[in-house]
Amino acid sequence: MTTVEAVERVRVDSERLERFVTGAFVAHGMSDADAAVSARGLVLADLRGHESHGVSTNFFWYIEALRKGEINPRPQITIIHDSGAISRWDGDYGHGFVVGERVMREVIRRTNQYGCAFAAVGRSRHYGMAQYYSLMALDHDQIGFSMTNSHSAGVVPFQGREARYETNPLSVAAPAGEEAPFVLDMATSTAAAGKIGVAARNGTAIPPTWALGADDRPTTDPNEAMRTIKLLPLGATKEGSGHKGSGLALWVDIMCGVLSMRGFHSHTTDPGEVNHFFGAWKIEAFGPIEEYRELMDARLRSIRETPPAEGFSRVLHAGQPEYEAEVDRRANGVPLHPTVMDKLRTLSGETGVPLDL
Amino acid sequence: MTTVEAVERVRVDSERLERFVTGAFVAHGMSDADAAVSARGLVLADLRGHESHGVSTNFFWYIEALRKGEINPRPQITIIHDSGAISRWDGDYGHGFVVGERVMREVIRRTNQYGCAFAAVGRSRHYGMAQYYSLMALDHDQIGFSMTNSHSAGVVPFQGREARYETNPLSVAAPAGEEAPFVLDMATSTAAAGKIGVAARNGTAIPPTWALGADDRPTTDPNEAMRTIKLLPLGATKEGSGHKGSGLALWVDIMCGVLSMRGFHSHTTDPGEVNHFFGAWKIEAFGPIEEYRELMDARLRSIRETPPAEGFSRVLHAGQPEYEAEVDRRANGVPLHPTVMDKLRTLSGETGVPLDL
Repeated sequence: MTTVEAVERVRVDSERLERFVTGAFVAHGMSDADAAVSARGLVLADLRGHESHGVSTNFFWYIEALRKGEINPRPQITIIHDSGAISRWDGDYGHGFVVGERVMREVIRRTNQYGCAFAAVGRSRHYGMAQYYSLMALDHDQIGFSMTNSHSAGVVPFQGREARYETNPLSVAAPAGEEAPFVLDMATSTAAAGKIGVAARNGTAIPPTWALGADDRPTTDPNEAMRTIKLLPLGATKEGSGHKGSGLALWVDIMCGVLSMRGFHSHTTDPGEVNHFFGAWKIEAFGPIEEYRELMDARLRSIRETPPAEGFSRVLHAGQPEYEAEVDRRANGVPLHPTVMDKLRTLSGETGVPLDL
Repeated sequence: MTTVEAVERVRVDSERLERFVTGAFVAHGMSDADAAVSARGLVLADLRGHESHGVSTNFFWYIEALRKGEINPRPQITIIHDSGAISRWDGDYGHGFVVGERVMREVIRRTNQYGCAFAAVGRSRHYGMAQYYSLMALDHDQIGFSMTNSHSAGVVPFQGREARYETNPLSVAAPAGEEAPFVLDMATSTAAAGKIGVAARNGTAIPPTWALGADDRPTTDPNEAMRTIKLLPLGATKEGSGHKGSGLALWVDIMCGVLSMRGFHSHTTDPGEVNHFFGAWKIEAFGPIEEYRELMDARLRSIRETPPAEGFSRVLHAGQPEYEAEVDRRANGVPLHPTVMDKLRTLSGETGVPLDL
C-alpha cells in the first residue's frame, strides 16, 4: 500500500479511465491490443491502491519514454532459448507490461502442461506492479510468481555505502476459496522511493532505517534522501537483519539479470534496461484443488483472526488490503489527485484522445 | 550467522565429529545410510558457522526425540502424488534430514529431466539448516530452493499479538564461477530465537524489533522474550515494513503446509510436525553455463567491492561468510564449547560409541 497525502480527490470510473489510457498509448504508436494490456496493468495498480504504480505517476513517464523512443511501441517478443518448462525471452525493449503479459501467458500455458514453468526475460522496460503478472495465475488455479530487476541502482547492499541494485520487487499470488487471495508484492528495500517523496511533500521526517544521506549515514530528512537515492534493504541495520533484505534483492538480480544472461547495474550502458523472471506452480499437480482451497481458507482465516497488537484494529494478510481497495474502487471509482486530472486533460489535448471520465 | 559468546572453545576435526554423530544416530535405531545423511547435515551447520543448527544444540534434542519416539528412525518415505516435475511426498515422521535429502535428491534428478522440479513434503520432522538442501543443487549446475514450516508457533504476524507461525526459513543457493556461491538462508522473522538466548546468557538488552514481551508490547529484556516466544517478523514495525516479513512467512506456510495438504499451526494436534518445500532450476535450460558463471562472478564481485559504510570493514554477499567459515573449519576444525564436549562424552558413555575426536 502506498501512503498518499490527504487531499481532495476525484473518483473516476476505472473502465473509462482504462479506455483513455489505451487511446493515449495507441496515439504513441502501440497496437490496440498491446495498448489495452498496458492500460489494464496501469489501472489495476490504481484499483488495488498502488497509486505509485498507476495512472497518477508512472503513466506520464511511460508516455515520455514512448516519445523519446526508449520504449519500443512495436516490439518483436521472441523466445531465444527453449527447454519446455523453462524458457528465455527477448523483450525487444517493448513496454514491460506488454512483454511481461505475453511471457506470463505462455508460462501459465506451459504450467498446465508440465506442472510448473519459469521464464527469464531480457531487454525489457519497466513492467509496473509486480503483482500484475502473478495475479494472472489465479484464474488458472495456479500460484503465480513475478520478479524484476533494473540496470539502474538506488539501493545499497547491507554494510555498503553505494547503490548496487534497484528495489528489486518480488510477487507471489496464491488463490484461496472464500478468503481474499494471498498476494505478496514487496520491494526488497525497506521503503519504496515513493514513500520518501510523500514524506518530503508533507514535510515529515523519515525513519533512519529508510535511506542514507549525503554523508552516507542514515538520514531522517526526506529531501536529502530524495537527492542521494541510497535506499536501505529490508531490515536496514545489523539489529534489523539487513542482510536478509540485501540477500533477497540479490536473489532477484540473479533470477532476472543473470538467468536472462543480460546482467545488472553498471553491466550494461542502458540504465533503463530491466529484466524479469516469471513462474507458476499448478496446484492440482500437488493434490486435489478442493482440499487446497479449504486449507488456504483456514490458514488465511487464522491470520485474519489473530488478536491485534496495541495501535492496530485488525490483522491483515498480504493481498487483503489490495483486495478490499479493488472491491471499493471498481464500484466507486479510482481516486485521482486534481493535478493528475489536469495532466490527463493536457494529454487529451495533445493526442486528440477524448477524456470521457 | 549465529552470534555466539566469546568463550574458550576446543577445535575438533569435522570428519571425526561426523563419525561420532553417525554412530550415535545408529545407536538410536537409524540405518547406517540415514544416520550418515543426518550427521553430514548437522556437522555442515557447524562447518558453515551456524552452530545453532549444529552439533552444539540441535543434535541433543534430536537424540531426545529419537528416544521418545517422536522421530521415526526407519521411515518409509513415499511419493503420494506424482506429476513429473511436481511431486508430493509423505515423510513418515522420519528425521527431517533423511526426508529432505531423499526428496531433494529426486528433485535434482527431475530438474535435469524437466528443467525445473518442485516437491511438497508432509509428515516430516525438523530438518536442520535450510541450506543443507539448496546447497545440494550446486554440484549439478542448478539453483536450489528449500523452505520449511512447523506446526508450532513462535512468530506473530505483523499487527498481531499472538504467534501464528514459526520462523519459516527459506534458502536459495546459486553457483558461481570463481566467487563464493550465493547462498541465501534466512528465517522470515527479524531474529532467530537462538540470538535472544545468547543475549540472555550475556545479560545484554535486545532491540525492540525482535520480540513482544508479557504485555504484548516490544520488549528489550531477552529473558522475558525467551518466556513469551513471540518473535516479530522481518521488518518488525510499520516503519520497518513488518508486513513484508509477515508475508514471506505466510508464503513459506503456503508452499510447505498447504501444498503438502497437511496444514499449519493449530491445524494438526502435533506441534512437532513440519512440512517442507524443495525445488531447483537447471541453469543450462536458460542458456550456456559459462555465460552464466561469468555474469554471476561479475554480479557477486560488484557487491563485494562496494565501499563499506561506517562501522563495517567490507561488504559481503549472502553465503560468503559461511563459505569462509567452511574453508577455515574444514582445515582447522569445528569450535565446540566445553559444555558441549561434556555432553558428547556423556552420550558416548550412554551409547558405547567411542568419542575419538
